[in-house]
Amino acid sequence: MDPEIKIRGYHTDLYGHVNNARYLEFLEEGRWQVLEDSMDLKDFMGRGFLFFVVNINISYLSQAWVNNLVSVRSGLGKIGNKSAVIRQQVLNKTTGKICASADVTFVISDSGGKALKLEGELLEILRQVPDFEDGAAGE
Amino acid sequence: MDPEIKIRGYHTDLYGHVNNARYLEFLEEGRWQVLEDSMDLKDFMGRGFLFFVVNINISYLSQAWVNNLVSVRSGLGKIGNKSAVIRQQVLNKTTGKICASADVTFVISDSGGKALKLEGELLEILRQVPDFEDGAAGE
Amino acid sequence: MDPEIKIRGYHTDLYGHVNNARYLEFLEEGRWQVLEDSMDLKDFMGRGFLFFVVNINISYLSQAWVNNLVSVRSGLGKIGNKSAVIRQQVLNKTTGKICASADVTFVISDSGGKALKLEGELLEILRQVPDFEDGAAGE
Amino acid sequence: MDPEIKIRGYHTDLYGHVNNARYLEFLEEGRWQVLEDSMDLKDFMGRGFLFFVVNINISYLSQAWVNNLVSVRSGLGKIGNKSAVIRQQVLNKTTGKICASADVTFVISDSGGKALKLEGELLEILRQVPDFEDGAAGE
Repeated sequence: MDPEIKIRGYHTDLYGHVNNARYLEFLEEGRWQVLEDSMDLKDFMGRGFLFFVVNINISYLSQAWVNNLVSVRSGLGKIGNKSAVIRQQVLNKTTGKICASADVTFVISDSGGKALKLEGELLEILRQVPDFEDGAAGE
Repeated sequence: MDPEIKIRGYHTDLYGHVNNARYLEFLEEGRWQVLEDSMDLKDFMGRGFLFFVVNINISYLSQAWVNNLVSVRSGLGKIGNKSAVIRQQVLNKTTGKICASADVTFVISDSGGKALKLEGELLEILRQVPDFEDGAAGE
Repeated sequence: MDPEIKIRGYHTDLYGHVNNARYLEFLEEGRWQVLEDSMDLKDFMGRGFLFFVVNINISYLSQAWVNNLVSVRSGLGKIGNKSAVIRQQVLNKTTGKICASADVTFVISDSGGKALKLEGELLEILRQVPDFEDGAAGE
Repeated sequence: MDPEIKIRGYHTDLYGHVNNARYLEFLEEGRWQVLEDSMDLKDFMGRGFLFFVVNINISYLSQAWVNNLVSVRSGLGKIGNKSAVIRQQVLNKTTGKICASADVTFVISDSGGKALKLEGELLEILRQVPDFEDGAAGE
């Protein structure tokens, strides 16, 4: 389920809107949630697999203010040879607008820190994460 | 001057390294510093001009740990019609490696929130910000 | 209702536990929630009343780790002449232990920043916030 | 040396002033600095000693705004049997006022998490941290 966050004073900066760095915390929240919901995360990490974010490309499209309710939608994007993308949207449910959309590129490494090829069982597990569906379309 | 930040416990997450969201605070620190150093920021904002970040594209290249000293290098990138880019690098002075590099795209709006064309006096002021110089080259 | 927060990587520091500064964000979350639930906050703030925290006395009693679920219990403590206390507890629902307990002293000021006497209508409104009930007792 | 922090947008909340949770990050900054400056912190932690904060009592006395420069003064307070206090002040150098003063009570534990008696060599090391001197007096 998409996590929901009510915007409080500490999320905002002097402009009164959510600060750009905070959105990355919202995105992290969303990523853990979608991973938890779709795969056996505990087992996965217990086997020494680690997620490392290597790139975030985030567009700030509209603003979120105190008392707004936002939700974070996350889903699988493109899967490459050694990296994959989780696409994410922060939706402002109060205004009906998308606040931010982001492509988060990550690698999966073994406990030694080496990025692994996304093939075989690893690829299968990753494909359990549902594809990203655009929130703007259906609402 | 490039701001320097000593990494403390509160900057890091359970992996022991600086969390991806924290880097955006380091970048914000660097942007204010380069703007302050190169233009009359107080006068600029007093006239109602506001900077709005519309996109951040950040690559995480290596890690920063507690007690590492990082510095943030910032400079002007491409200037477009209505938006411009500040390029930034977070350098880990302890390891000698670049931790993160980012392109931050912003618009300048008037007090009503309308993005302004980057021309005339506005363009002149913006051009006072020095071009980005790659930190890896000279060190 | 007591807000619940699932602990994620970005909440924790290099010790792997929630950093002491983060607890203050959890407390702020809890305070807004209890105020919202018990009084007409929008009307109150629309009339120019502001809450200002003047003291926080927080004890860290046990730890919260990634994947733990915590909840924040908040209620009215002592009401003084010009200040009042909201008592708060962060409960770790995963371990059953209290992570933190805090007394947050605040004043209510008018739009000019002057702390107001807590009497008459102001006192009545404040008394709508339920008294703090110790979470450890019933669980 | 007392660490100095220039207040930036991301430090502030919708009131335009530094948020109460941020002060705890400033305090953490100050504590590491005073420990680093007065003892061999690396050796100390390498021997498995850990600092755990058990209580923070912070009073918010005046405000800090964007572009203000604050500094954090820290020094030893009372030393008890198993816990000790670091006293701290956040001084707003722009306004000349103290923003916040805090007593931070901590224990020192061994690598197993057991709080140690502050006696013998441990007490000697701790006493290397200079006593707190009130910043308001001399300025």
